[in-house]
Amino acid sequence: MSSTRCAACKQLRRKCPSDCIFLPYFPPNNPQRFSYVHRIYGASNVGKMLQQVEEHQRGDVADSLYYEAYYRIKDPVYGCVGIITVLHEETYHVQCQLAKVQAQIDLLYQNRLYTFDPSFY
Amino acid sequence: MSSTRCAACKQLRRKCPSDCIFLPYFPPNNPQRFSYVHRIYGASNVGKMLQQVEEHQRGDVADSLYYEAYYRIKDPVYGCVGIITVLHEETYHVQCQLAKVQAQIDLLYQNRLYTFDPSFY
Repeated sequence: MSSTRCAACKQLRRKCPSDCIFLPYFPPNNPQRFSYVHRIYGASNVGKMLQQVEEHQRGDVADSLYYEAYYRIKDPVYGCVGIITVLHEETYHVQCQLAKVQAQIDLLYQNRLYTFDPSFY
Repeated sequence: MSSTRCAACKQLRRKCPSDCIFLPYFPPNNPQRFSYVHRIYGASNVGKMLQQVEEHQRGDVADSLYYEAYYRIKDPVYGCVGIITVLHEETYHVQCQLAKVQAQIDLLYQNRLYTFDPSFY
């Protein structure tokens, strides 16, 4: 076995061919990155998901799968859907605040004490 | 085979025991729900992820896995991480707008033409 096996081949205890699908995205110096996606999706599914997209998109596939796997392990019930829920609530909260402040500012301008300057928005 | 097999056992062409882990969360009338999580995680991994949490949390696990699988199939490069990115950008954009409008309103109050009413914020 080569000493430059990728993290996937190292963990699966197999030879790492030069055209290994995992090699560019799961380097041997970060075994946890592969370990996470392996645990959630299984190596074979990760390989399939990498293979079904263009080569220049595979880095992003590996990154987003790692992100999702990391949050699924951290939060086994909601995974990264929990983050989406929090972000939805946060956006909604800030939008409400914005609507309130905008209503207040509209009221001030309606009192015609200031000249409206739309470039300020 | 029972005619009330769950979507998982139906798709995997096997008997559906009364204590089947998939039965309550993957009903036979929604075969696509299981088909999506099966395609992304594999049935065995989905079963493991259901089994590792309390029974009352399993509905949420099934829902969030389905959500993630659905978006991974819809967007094979970013999956639901794409949604997180968009929501982060949206929140940031609304926060910037809010800061701008708040700065404007602060300026108006600094001109002392209005009495400041903090309860309005």
